[in-house]
Amino acid sequence: SRSLNLAVIPGDGIGQEVVAQGLKVLSAVLPQDVKLETKEFDFGAKRYHATGETLTEADLDALKKHDAILLGAIGDPSVPSGVLERGFLLKLRFAFDHHVNLRPSKLLPGVATPLAGQPEIDFVVVREGTEGPYTGNGGTIRKGTEHEVATEVSVNTAFGVERVVRDAFARAQARPRKKLTLVHKNNVLTFAGHLWTNVFNKVAEEFPEVTTDYIHVDAATIYLVTDPARFDVIVTDNLFGDIITDLAAAVSGGIGVAASGNINPSGEFPSMFEPVHGSAPDIAGQGKADPSATVLSVALLLRHLGHESEAARIEDAVSADLAERVGKPARSTEEIGDALAVRVAG
Amino acid sequence: SRSLNLAVIPGDGIGQEVVAQGLKVLSAVLPQDVKLETKEFDFGAKRYHATGETLTEADLDALKKHDAILLGAIGDPSVPSGVLERGFLLKLRFAFDHHVNLRPSKLLPGVATPLAGQPEIDFVVVREGTEGPYTGNGGTIRKGTEHEVATEVSVNTAFGVERVVRDAFARAQARPRKKLTLVHKNNVLTFAGHLWTNVFNKVAEEFPEVTTDYIHVDAATIYLVTDPARFDVIVTDNLFGDIITDLAAAVSGGIGVAASGNINPSGEFPSMFEPVHGSAPDIAGQGKADPSATVLSVALLLRHLGHESEAARIEDAVSADLAERVGKPARSTEEIGDALAVRVAG
Ligand SMILES: CC(C)[C@H](C(=O)O)[C@@H](O)C(=O)O
Ligand SMILES: CC(C)[C@H](C(=O)O)[C@@H](O)C(=O)O
Repeated sequence: SRSLNLAVIPGDGIGQEVVAQGLKVLSAVLPQDVKLETKEFDFGAKRYHATGETLTEADLDALKKHDAILLGAIGDPSVPSGVLERGFLLKLRFAFDHHVNLRPSKLLPGVATPLAGQPEIDFVVVREGTEGPYTGNGGTIRKGTEHEVATEVSVNTAFGVERVVRDAFARAQARPRKKLTLVHKNNVLTFAGHLWTNVFNKVAEEFPEVTTDYIHVDAATIYLVTDPARFDVIVTDNLFGDIITDLAAAVSGGIGVAASGNINPSGEFPSMFEPVHGSAPDIAGQGKADPSATVLSVALLLRHLGHESEAARIEDAVSADLAERVGKPARSTEEIGDALAVRVAG
Repeated sequence: SRSLNLAVIPGDGIGQEVVAQGLKVLSAVLPQDVKLETKEFDFGAKRYHATGETLTEADLDALKKHDAILLGAIGDPSVPSGVLERGFLLKLRFAFDHHVNLRPSKLLPGVATPLAGQPEIDFVVVREGTEGPYTGNGGTIRKGTEHEVATEVSVNTAFGVERVVRDAFARAQARPRKKLTLVHKNNVLTFAGHLWTNVFNKVAEEFPEVTTDYIHVDAATIYLVTDPARFDVIVTDNLFGDIITDLAAAVSGGIGVAASGNINPSGEFPSMFEPVHGSAPDIAGQGKADPSATVLSVALLLRHLGHESEAARIEDAVSADLAERVGKPARSTEEIGDALAVRVAG
């Protein structure tokens, strides 16, 4: 008999509510012979206030023992900006070498978009997850004085860029349109830009069937609202990926349905799956949060672990559920989770 | 008698065509007693190919003698990416200390937007122009090998941040809504983020009438498509400003109408005004380019030099012209320029 040994981090704000529904749908979709074991971890604002800890070595050891991690959301206004982001979210991505940050965007039928004319949107962003300006490199001198200087260093390595670019090419190769777009700002950030562009062009030779193009990040935001259909797979750096995937989520149904995977492709460390939305403290505890993004993150998790048909069943269920919402009164977090659980089981 | 001594840089691609119309409208709007003198400079791809030069010390000395600079566009596919950007555009912004990069976004009546429901859009982005990741700081080791490391350093100083933040507060104070939003990523880029946030909060005390808020750059892209009406004035760093102003242009009528000013508020060096669009080599020489963005940049130039009523007349003319386009066949660059010249004179 097979097993799925899952670390669960509900976290802060709406994290608790949406993760509960994610687990409900996961249990409903798993075949009888797969034994689901979950262990809950209490990371986030509460633990930080109680202990001052965000993520210890012992925590990392405990997390390491699982097949994958499901995360709700981390972040609370009571904690200074940056503490949980750097001390937990980014620390985990770096410790577990989550270098492929996968963020699909698909505008499903019936789903509202701020764009006129309901364009076709179906692309995947492969965001680098362990380099760029996210490394914490940099510093401050003369802090708090009129002579303060603060630097942020974007670190880019051939090793780090090549592995994520190759991953993106392989994903493009596996899709019907086989198109990969590099997004960077190589006309201004010329050091990093040359590295990214050269590696991209070199790896492209291994994938002759994949059509490639290059777009500056500023222009990419224009295309995301005027012609999102032009994108199939996008590969980009950590910061540009952060920015354009929020925009991509906004145009393709909102962050209520945006899923993501922080993937370690080698399997050396467990990968982590999380909705793109944050902890949304303003609506926490009210049953108002849409659990679809978490449920779709569960689908990415299942696909990553080889359960393709279960992943597809979840995606079909969410798609059908969204299509049925049009014109109906809003349902609670739990009602949506129940409906999805019924659909995937049926 | 007064005079306006203008340096004109048509540049590459459509730059030539749109600048010609900008000058036509400028001549038409200026009062009789203002003597317009223009001197054309040949910067861009042609000069680079002929001489290898992009912008020399002698060029800077010559440009310095003018009241302002009007730029069309610089950039051509025949020149390697980065050469003209770093060697001309950014070199000029840095040499003339253009630290206030002003980019207004206003969705005019009748103008098409990719957003559904024709939202109200009327905000100004004050983008820092001389710091951040644009300084050219950074480098590459082991270039071209599998061990290459490339860095980009974002440099932020209290001096540089404070002057642009103060400028933005003053602009917000002068607008009816009096609202200023800081856009950054202070939860990840914590060194620069703390500097920006602290300076912003400190300067805010001098402007008690201005309402302030803070938004991460990724979330800002969401609001720009779901709720652009929430913005009045935005102040942000050089790179974030680059990215969000292209998106802002896209949602508020496209880069065909997006104007910008690279401003040195002290007047120590001439300020430069340019359309946000680039040289668009694909449509160059065909009379297809919309000169409105250049004409609106001329309005910003006039306002900067104290000719407020002429600036307003240009803006009204462009607004009326755009409103009249709906349902009509497309006109040429020159036809639009002629129509605007008639309107501002009338
Ligand atoms: C919360 C923050 C650290 C994070 C990021 O910037 O990566 C978030 O915006 C995301 O996109 O997952
Ligand atoms: C061409 C490039 C150097 C420039 C920039 O990045 O500032 C452009 O994108 C702009 O916004 O004016």
